[in-house]
Amino acid sequence: MLDEAYVSHVATIRDGLPVVLPMAHARLGDQLILHGSAAAGLFRDLRRGAQVCVTTTLMDGLVFGRAARFHSMNYRSVTVHGEAVAITEPAEALAALRALVEHATPGRWAEVRHPTEEELRETGLWRVPIDNASMKARAGSPLDEGTNTTQLVWTGYVPVRLSFGEPVPAADLPAGIAVPEYLKALD
Amino acid sequence: MLDEAYVSHVATIRDGLPVVLPMAHARLGDQLILHGSAAAGLFRDLRRGAQVCVTTTLMDGLVFGRAARFHSMNYRSVTVHGEAVAITEPAEALAALRALVEHATPGRWAEVRHPTEEELRETGLWRVPIDNASMKARAGSPLDEGTNTTQLVWTGYVPVRLSFGEPVPAADLPAGIAVPEYLKALD
Repeated sequence: MLDEAYVSHVATIRDGLPVVLPMAHARLGDQLILHGSAAAGLFRDLRRGAQVCVTTTLMDGLVFGRAARFHSMNYRSVTVHGEAVAITEPAEALAALRALVEHATPGRWAEVRHPTEEELRETGLWRVPIDNASMKARAGSPLDEGTNTTQLVWTGYVPVRLSFGEPVPAADLPAGIAVPEYLKALD
Repeated sequence: MLDEAYVSHVATIRDGLPVVLPMAHARLGDQLILHGSAAAGLFRDLRRGAQVCVTTTLMDGLVFGRAARFHSMNYRSVTVHGEAVAITEPAEALAALRALVEHATPGRWAEVRHPTEEELRETGLWRVPIDNASMKARAGSPLDEGTNTTQLVWTGYVPVRLSFGEPVPAADLPAGIAVPEYLKALD
């Protein structure tokens, strides 16, 4: 599920209060890699490591019961608890950035300019071990127990998923560079 | 943006550690209404109120730079800080549940069986005032500053959105009940 989703919500404690912000993630073996501009705000102390809770959720559907009480959502959600540690070692940072770039589009890494040492230092990358994790999920039709099934109202669920539109080229893309296969394959 | 999204990530502190879980949300005037089965775990102390941070994120696109460093995501994100308070007053709980049911599908509330007093008591509903909120967003093409624009690699972004599939009727839906217009209108 971590490989199917793109965005995680990362919570930590700052000044005694909870804070949660979205970050891009990728899985690298048994480590969860985190990256995001939000990190500047969330993780200003994180060079020293911080306890975090990371939850990744895929919304799978809207659920319509016959009674107001039995409206719900279908979803899958993974929660990881652990210490987020800044990735500073260059070879490890390179592997982490590669995992992020390849996450959505395997094949992309081979085509792009790889990071300089300075870029690697500037890229906020963290890892959290995936060894204290739990999953929750809901699927299928509503649990309409005890309701009047002769009630004339539609009941069931509507599937929901992320879908990808047509690639939009940057204004400075030279003519003649075709949309790569790994973008056409996005689904 | 809160009206466009369906899922929020709600962070709080439990036993000195950050915890974040997904919950359904709706906006009711200047209050954010939260509802979710996750609440049993997240909010066991919440009858007394708890400091929370709620972040709602819409992923809008994958961004492809010419350099690995300039891969990113387009998104919109709203973060609300405040105290979550359990909704216990029946009229307020009814209004909150109505806001949740009508959020995705205006018109649904008029068709479904409304909650009994017991159901309202059993439904975990909380409100957080939307008066300490911030928004972050990224849109458009990559910021490929300083990169070699003659590099022969596709650059730009791919739009991403939630899309809805065909409604799936519950197994016990009687024949002859058509899919309502508010479900066909989901987009």
